[in-house]
Amino acid sequence: MIIKDNRLSENEIIFKHLRKLNFGNKESFNFKNDGALIKKKRNAEIIVTNDIITESIDFFKDDAADSVAQKIMTCNLSDLSSMGAIPYSYTLSLSIPKGISREWISVFVNKLLYLQKKYKIFLLGGDICKSSKICISANFFGYAKKKLILQREFPKIGEDIWVTGNIGESYLGLQIKKKKLKVNKLFTKYYINKYLFPKPCMIGEKIAKVSKYGIDISDGFLGDLSKLLGSKLGAEISLSNIPFSANTNLLIKDNIINPITLLNGGDDYELIFTTPIKNDKIIRRIGINSRVKITKIGRIVDKKGIIIDNKKLTKSKNSYQYFF
Amino acid sequence: MIIKDNRLSENEIIFKHLRKLNFGNKESFNFKNDGALIKKKRNAEIIVTNDIITESIDFFKDDAADSVAQKIMTCNLSDLSSMGAIPYSYTLSLSIPKGISREWISVFVNKLLYLQKKYKIFLLGGDICKSSKICISANFFGYAKKKLILQREFPKIGEDIWVTGNIGESYLGLQIKKKKLKVNKLFTKYYINKYLFPKPCMIGEKIAKVSKYGIDISDGFLGDLSKLLGSKLGAEISLSNIPFSANTNLLIKDNIINPITLLNGGDDYELIFTTPIKNDKIIRRIGINSRVKITKIGRIVDKKGIIIDNKKLTKSKNSYQYFF
Repeated sequence: MIIKDNRLSENEIIFKHLRKLNFGNKESFNFKNDGALIKKKRNAEIIVTNDIITESIDFFKDDAADSVAQKIMTCNLSDLSSMGAIPYSYTLSLSIPKGISREWISVFVNKLLYLQKKYKIFLLGGDICKSSKICISANFFGYAKKKLILQREFPKIGEDIWVTGNIGESYLGLQIKKKKLKVNKLFTKYYINKYLFPKPCMIGEKIAKVSKYGIDISDGFLGDLSKLLGSKLGAEISLSNIPFSANTNLLIKDNIINPITLLNGGDDYELIFTTPIKNDKIIRRIGINSRVKITKIGRIVDKKGIIIDNKKLTKSKNSYQYFF
Repeated sequence: MIIKDNRLSENEIIFKHLRKLNFGNKESFNFKNDGALIKKKRNAEIIVTNDIITESIDFFKDDAADSVAQKIMTCNLSDLSSMGAIPYSYTLSLSIPKGISREWISVFVNKLLYLQKKYKIFLLGGDICKSSKICISANFFGYAKKKLILQREFPKIGEDIWVTGNIGESYLGLQIKKKKLKVNKLFTKYYINKYLFPKPCMIGEKIAKVSKYGIDISDGFLGDLSKLLGSKLGAEISLSNIPFSANTNLLIKDNIINPITLLNGGDDYELIFTTPIKNDKIIRRIGINSRVKITKIGRIVDKKGIIIDNKKLTKSKNSYQYFF
């Protein structure tokens, strides 16, 4: 009697699904070697980022596979953008539990495929192992000109602080998903979608031409701004300038949500950067050409701390971090 | 009342422990950016490998932290060597559970530090997250000359097959640890040490000068040899030529272990490579100069399958793979 082994195997995942993600690039050795090749580019440095996302921490067990794919892409692409780099390729470490379905793998890989085309990247290689929960780590590679790598240390006093996109969208989605916030059906759908499918702001490379200092917002606006300021500088910010979506402004107006709470959220994947006032026009033009909302929200000052509307934040906010 | 927060934080792990692993290299941006820089090298390609190890799969829950550090280094370094590459640096994704001790982190990092010095590499960056079990993924970067990258496809018919080191050591340690094999105290210590602290064979770059085709043994000698042979070629092997340690030869002689079983083991992290007979002398010299045992064990033939001592293996062995 022959029992057909219908279990999902590592080889099936690699050769039936993941293989289509290398887009035939020779650097991946068609996933047959234990390593791959990272192409050098004349006049460009190679930037590497590394981010992990884990079930029950960065996403819920029942979140769809395409949301998981979106998240591992977004957090890494956002890191590349925050360095001023253009994405090139990536490696993927998949830790997945027994019993994972063929459908999950298929939806996950198809979303990666879609995003790879959108961001012009391909899969270089990776590894698969078994685990009790889904845990995905990726290394992303990108190119940036040496003099145009966005730095964290230290913005110049007097420079303007800018931010892209809208703040708090993903955070509001999370609160709604956790049933800590109740809004109408339309808003629920809007924000949950923002939480499940956060998009990276990929204009870092353009911004790097007129700005030297930047960071992406992954752990909350105030926490990441604090990181950029370091231990000696401060920021004066006007709350009315902080960019919120029309929906969020309605929630704020109706006192459903406190805007300061949104500044402590996370997973915005927008960019904060600083630049001298003379670059105002260019920044606005980059925004228009890239169809990205870019807003001036304040400026760097020489006194430590973040001042919002002339009031100093009583507790200096730390960026989100894990405790073990 | 002020309650001192004595929990181990992400920042403590990064800035107290991991930071010493960047050896002050500017490419890491001192772990302050979300990305790092991979240095280009003139006349050399950049090779990347990716391996994950997971608690309960690649190591036991009670295995010491220095063994875990050794394993994540060894599997990745072995991959680099199997491509003919010289190690340069790496990124580390740490998924660690709540309650992990400061001692665990310290022992883990100190072993990495020791191995970094030994293999002349440094930590470029990484990410930390919470998980229910320890799961560590790493990307290693190395350099290889374009024409000297060891290939998997396809060795030439008539070429000799060589293997480095001894086969089956780590596998025997695992069997002893799992209480599936009982040997005397001295042997127990010897093999468990081989299982806990497998060493990579780092002469791939030297071998690549006289060999075009190679692979490292991570999933078992026969499985990995099959991968190298692909779907069309075969190998004729003499069992008496397979390199075993003096201890293992004693176990074989006493019928305590079947040598064929050892060929299906795993985690040897030795190299298999092929080369024309004219390179015999050079290979032996590489072995002597590198103090690495290198043994000729057979040759590539044009008929599919692996023949050991004139007997074809009835079932073509597949390399170890996961099922979900």
